[in-house]
Amino acid sequence: MDQTVKTFSYTLLKQDGNARLGEIATPRGIIRTPAFMPVGTVATVKALYPEQVKEAGADILLGNTYHLMLRPGAERIARLGGLHKFMRWNGPILTDSGGFQVMSLSTIRKITEEGAQFQSHIDGSKHMLTPERSIEIQCLLGSDIQMQFDECIELPAERSEVERAMELSLRWAERSKRAFDAQLAGGGANPGQALFAIVQGGIDRELRQRSARALVAMDFPGIAVGGLAVGEGHEAMIATLEDTLPHLPTGKPRYLMGVGTPLDLIESVRRGIDMFDCVMPTRNGRHGMAFTWNGRVNLHNARHAEDSAPLDPDSTCAAARDYSRAYLHHLVKAGEYLGAMILSWTNTVFYQDLMAAMRMAIAEGRFEAWAEETKARISQKI
Amino acid sequence: MDQTVKTFSYTLLKQDGNARLGEIATPRGIIRTPAFMPVGTVATVKALYPEQVKEAGADILLGNTYHLMLRPGAERIARLGGLHKFMRWNGPILTDSGGFQVMSLSTIRKITEEGAQFQSHIDGSKHMLTPERSIEIQCLLGSDIQMQFDECIELPAERSEVERAMELSLRWAERSKRAFDAQLAGGGANPGQALFAIVQGGIDRELRQRSARALVAMDFPGIAVGGLAVGEGHEAMIATLEDTLPHLPTGKPRYLMGVGTPLDLIESVRRGIDMFDCVMPTRNGRHGMAFTWNGRVNLHNARHAEDSAPLDPDSTCAAARDYSRAYLHHLVKAGEYLGAMILSWTNTVFYQDLMAAMRMAIAEGRFEAWAEETKARISQKI
Repeated sequence: MDQTVKTFSYTLLKQDGNARLGEIATPRGIIRTPAFMPVGTVATVKALYPEQVKEAGADILLGNTYHLMLRPGAERIARLGGLHKFMRWNGPILTDSGGFQVMSLSTIRKITEEGAQFQSHIDGSKHMLTPERSIEIQCLLGSDIQMQFDECIELPAERSEVERAMELSLRWAERSKRAFDAQLAGGGANPGQALFAIVQGGIDRELRQRSARALVAMDFPGIAVGGLAVGEGHEAMIATLEDTLPHLPTGKPRYLMGVGTPLDLIESVRRGIDMFDCVMPTRNGRHGMAFTWNGRVNLHNARHAEDSAPLDPDSTCAAARDYSRAYLHHLVKAGEYLGAMILSWTNTVFYQDLMAAMRMAIAEGRFEAWAEETKARISQKI
Repeated sequence: MDQTVKTFSYTLLKQDGNARLGEIATPRGIIRTPAFMPVGTVATVKALYPEQVKEAGADILLGNTYHLMLRPGAERIARLGGLHKFMRWNGPILTDSGGFQVMSLSTIRKITEEGAQFQSHIDGSKHMLTPERSIEIQCLLGSDIQMQFDECIELPAERSEVERAMELSLRWAERSKRAFDAQLAGGGANPGQALFAIVQGGIDRELRQRSARALVAMDFPGIAVGGLAVGEGHEAMIATLEDTLPHLPTGKPRYLMGVGTPLDLIESVRRGIDMFDCVMPTRNGRHGMAFTWNGRVNLHNARHAEDSAPLDPDSTCAAARDYSRAYLHHLVKAGEYLGAMILSWTNTVFYQDLMAAMRMAIAEGRFEAWAEETKARISQKI
C-alpha cells in the first residue's frame, strides 16, 4: 500500500461535454477514470493470470460478495490475509454487496425489512444477507470500495414494486452506512476504504430522482447507478442515466453497475459515468466472441476456418496479433482451454484500451468526434 | 529453421550405467535427451500458452495424428502452412501415427491387412487409416519426427493376439517406410525429418525381441517402444524394457511412448530410454493434482483449505512459488480455469526440470545416486 495516500478521494481533472476525466486515489493505487473493472467473481478473472489483467491496464478489479461468502467464505479469506493477498492482486478491489446475485443466482429468496434469505446455488445451504452482514463480509475481504446492500429487481416490473424496492434500498443504504462507520470506528475498515451508495428506481424518472436526492443527502463518497442492464434495453438505460446523473454531485465518482457493451460504455461516459464493471469481455471470450477495433468477431463462424489473418492487427495485445483466426476458430470449435484463455485476454485488453482511448479523447477535448468515429468502427459484426 | 542442420541425427554424448545423455539435431532445433515431450493433442498443450511450454524447457512437442486428421483436418493445416505455424511452435514436433487413438478413442473399428476403419469419436464420421495415409497426414502436418502406423492392443491379451498384432505392425512398418521414402523422393518430406519404428509384442520377451530385431534390420533412424502403459503395470513395463533395449542399436534414439509417472521416467532412463511423452502433467493438472519436488499434492484435499504455503518452494516455476495452496484449493474446488492453468503449468515445468536433472546427473556420472535420492523425495503423497 502507498502509505502517502491515507484517505479515499476523487479528483475531476477535466470535463468534455458531460464526459469526465478523473482520478480516484486510494492507498492501494490510483484509479484512472473513466475506468472499467474486470470481474473477478470468485477471486479470479476467469481464464486470466492476474499479471495479464494488470498488464492490460486495469487499475481496479471487482469481486463478488455473494460468491466469495459461499466459497471459500469471507472469514476464511480474512484468516488468509484478505482478498488482495489471496488472489495476488495488490491494486484496489471493489466488492458488490451481494444483492444482485441473490436476485439472479440463488433460489428460494425471501426479502424482508431485515434482509434477504436465500439458498446457495452451489449446495443449497441457507444464508441470510443483511446490510450489516454485507458490510462485515466486505470488510473481512478488505475491499477498497464497498457497496451498500440493496434490493435489485428484474425489469419490467410494476411501478409500485419498483418503488417498494427503491425505498427499501434507501433504508438499507442508511443501515449500510452505519455499519461501515462502525467498522471504521472499530478498526474493521480504514479511511482509505470507501462505501458507495446505489441509486435504484427502475426506469422511472421520478423514482430515480427521489432515490438520487435521498442518497446524495447521506453524503456517500461515491454513488452507483444500479438496477440497469437487467432487461430494459440500451435506449431505456441511457434515458435513465440522463434522468439520474444531473442529480448527482460532480465531485464524486459515478459507477454504472454491470454495464456493458463497448457502445454502452461510450454512451454512458458521454453522459458522465466514471466507472463500469461487466463480465462481458471474459464471458464472451469463453464463448468464442471477440471484441476488436474493427468490430465483433464470432470465431465459431466457418468463414474463419482457413483465415490466416490475425484476430486484430490494431490490438495492443500480442495474442490478438500473433494467433490466426483459423487457429482460434479451431480452438473454439474443439472447446480448448487456450481458446478461452486467448479471447478472454484479448477482450480484456480491448476493454482497457477502449477506456484509455476515452480518457485520452476527453483530455484532448475531442470526445464527441472520437465517439462517433469509434462507434461506427467497433459496431461491425465480422 | 536452422539451415545449417539439414539432416536428422542423433549423438550419444555420454553413458552412465545404461542411462544415456544425447542430442538429436533437426533443422528446427536440438532436442536434448533424455527428453520429455509435452502432448499437444489437438494443436495445443492443454491450458498452456506455447510460450510457457517453451520457457519450461521443452525442446519438442507431440501432436496427435488421429485428433488432427478429424479436426481441423490435415489438408486444412497444410493449406495454413503446417502444424508449426498453425499452433505457433517453431521447435521440433513429433506426431504419432494415429494407431493408439484408433484403439483407445474411436468406435466400430475394423482392422484389416490394409489398415484400420473407424468412426470419429467427435461426430461418428467414418475414416480409414493405413500406413500410407498416416504418413501422408504426418507429412501434411509437417512433423519433424513421424511414427510408423501400428496396431496397438490393450493388455492383458492372448499371446496369439499379441503376436498377430506385432507381425501386422512389422508389415505396416515396411509400408510406412516405403511411404515416407516416397514422400522424401516427391518433396513431401525432407532429410531433416525422420520416421521412427515402433517395437510391439506386449509383455512377451520373445515377441518383443523378434519385433526389435526385424525393425533394427529395416534401419529406421529411431525406434520407439510402443504398446506399454496400457494396463500391464510398472514392473511388467520395466521388465519389458529390460528385455527389449539390449536389442536396439546404441547409436539411435529410443522413445518410450505414452509414459509416464516421474518414477516411470527415472526407471526408464536408467534402462536406456531417451524420449517420452505423456498427458499426465497436463491431465493431472486439470484434475487438481500437482507434482512437486516433495511429492504429489492433491489440491482437492481439505487440508490445503487454509494453507498459505506455496505449492512448491523448490520449483523453478514462479506460479508454484507465488500462489498459496489455499488459493489453488479454492480454484480447484470452484472449477476455475486458473486452477487448471496454474497446475498444468507447474506440472509441465516439473517434468522438464526432472528431465534436466536427469541429464545433469548423467553428465556428472552420478545418475544412480541421484535416482535413489530423488525417487524417495518425489514419491510422497501430500
